[in-house]
Amino acid sequence: MEILDGKKAAQAIKDKLKIDVAQLAAEGKKIPHLAAILVGNNGASETYVAAKVKSCEEVGFKSTLIRFEADISPVKLLEKVQELNNDPDVDGILVQLPLPKHIKESDVINALDPDKDVDGFHPVNVGKMVQGLPAFVPATPHGIMLLLEHYKVETKGKHAVVVGRSNIVGRPMSILLSQNSNPGNCTVTVCHSRTHNLKELCLQADMIVAALGKPEFVTADMVKEGAVVIDVGITRIEDTNKKSGFRLKGDVQYETVAPKCSWITPVPGGVGPMTIAALLRNTFTSCAQKN
Amino acid sequence: MEILDGKKAAQAIKDKLKIDVAQLAAEGKKIPHLAAILVGNNGASETYVAAKVKSCEEVGFKSTLIRFEADISPVKLLEKVQELNNDPDVDGILVQLPLPKHIKESDVINALDPDKDVDGFHPVNVGKMVQGLPAFVPATPHGIMLLLEHYKVETKGKHAVVVGRSNIVGRPMSILLSQNSNPGNCTVTVCHSRTHNLKELCLQADMIVAALGKPEFVTADMVKEGAVVIDVGITRIEDTNKKSGFRLKGDVQYETVAPKCSWITPVPGGVGPMTIAALLRNTFTSCAQKN
Repeated sequence: MEILDGKKAAQAIKDKLKIDVAQLAAEGKKIPHLAAILVGNNGASETYVAAKVKSCEEVGFKSTLIRFEADISPVKLLEKVQELNNDPDVDGILVQLPLPKHIKESDVINALDPDKDVDGFHPVNVGKMVQGLPAFVPATPHGIMLLLEHYKVETKGKHAVVVGRSNIVGRPMSILLSQNSNPGNCTVTVCHSRTHNLKELCLQADMIVAALGKPEFVTADMVKEGAVVIDVGITRIEDTNKKSGFRLKGDVQYETVAPKCSWITPVPGGVGPMTIAALLRNTFTSCAQKN
Repeated sequence: MEILDGKKAAQAIKDKLKIDVAQLAAEGKKIPHLAAILVGNNGASETYVAAKVKSCEEVGFKSTLIRFEADISPVKLLEKVQELNNDPDVDGILVQLPLPKHIKESDVINALDPDKDVDGFHPVNVGKMVQGLPAFVPATPHGIMLLLEHYKVETKGKHAVVVGRSNIVGRPMSILLSQNSNPGNCTVTVCHSRTHNLKELCLQADMIVAALGKPEFVTADMVKEGAVVIDVGITRIEDTNKKSGFRLKGDVQYETVAPKCSWITPVPGGVGPMTIAALLRNTFTSCAQKN
């Protein structure tokens, strides 16, 4: 069994970006600039945005964090999005989700300039991704693809079972894995809450992508010997022994599943770090298209 | 075994549209107007466009057929698209594919106003469809969904195997069938040219959607007793006994497969007529959004 080490792979991507950014700077060209919008004080969101901003600094990107109170009016938020759309210095705009209930998320996402939508949530980017055209791919699925690429995991002709059909992970993951690309070219089965014979299907899988958000849902009896297992789950479980008060649990019961796998992602340190690396890559790409 | 009769279902949809259009007219409201662009003289394209225009007449839509020679410049074609985009009387614009090689199809499709893209090929419509938002869904997959709906075929929790991953049929079909909707909520497996164990996978399927364009590819030994089989293939096979010089063959070996099925679409008379019905529905929807 080998570990798909997201920390290492993400670091390799960041190291490369750092060099590329330094080169841009040396050539007197524009440096990538990510603008992040954070509304309210959700604990997880604070952590994620802080990590993204920190990663920008690491690789030499410019970053701007724009904070709003939870009760900001939708109009004000949309005005800010418009302002960032029109700002030629900003390459990527990130609106940290979830937004407070009184703001319709799709309104905000649809207001983003698709060319700055580095989270890949705008319908234009989703559509282009589906059509196999150049597009910003959402950070988590993009990060998983980069991880498979980094470790040269063979995917062609493999049967991948994706558990979960969310717009953010399961759906794009299933599309990317089944496309005529490398990584890709998998036969892909999408499973979800209405799937009857999930265990049976998982047992057929050469690769399982668990993205349903149920801690330790995938157990050893569901996994074929030699399978590749990608664990997208990051549920916070209360843990008074931890300074943070919680620990992270994946959707896979790691201890029992790992011994059966050819490759597996740990939680934390698997998919998580890759999502930020993917976001940085998207932002760099956006900037490069202007340079 | 029961037939999913596309002619009957399409007629039912057209009958309903005819009543709805008559009602619009009676209320002095705008009547749906489809503009079709045909470039060159491809035989199949001529037939398809003629059928679409005829169907518009049948239900009382206004239609405009715009013809260009095969050597039209891309700029001229894009100018016409722009003109139709700006014409408030036009509700739907259809660019018959394929286009001559010197014109980049994606340039033309991306130039369409997504709100008039009744073929559902613009990335915005593809993206919205994936996200489960209201969107124009491409005619063939939309037609299949309408057919399943018409015959009240139960799909929830069923395992659907989609053979083919094209942007026009296989890919959108796999997405629609796996969405949390009715019809929908299938566990969906997408198979393609790189799939190893296609027969084995098909044998597991409660529903097979054959959309690979290989005549009689799906044979009885690949189909489970009681399966629903949707045949999207329409390959023209030379036949000197026919006035047209050809007959149409599906991707399914109908004679041997049909006896095993709970439901099956014939070719012709299955999916084909539904694509036009779906196009008309999309055009009506576009018009209704303005009325």
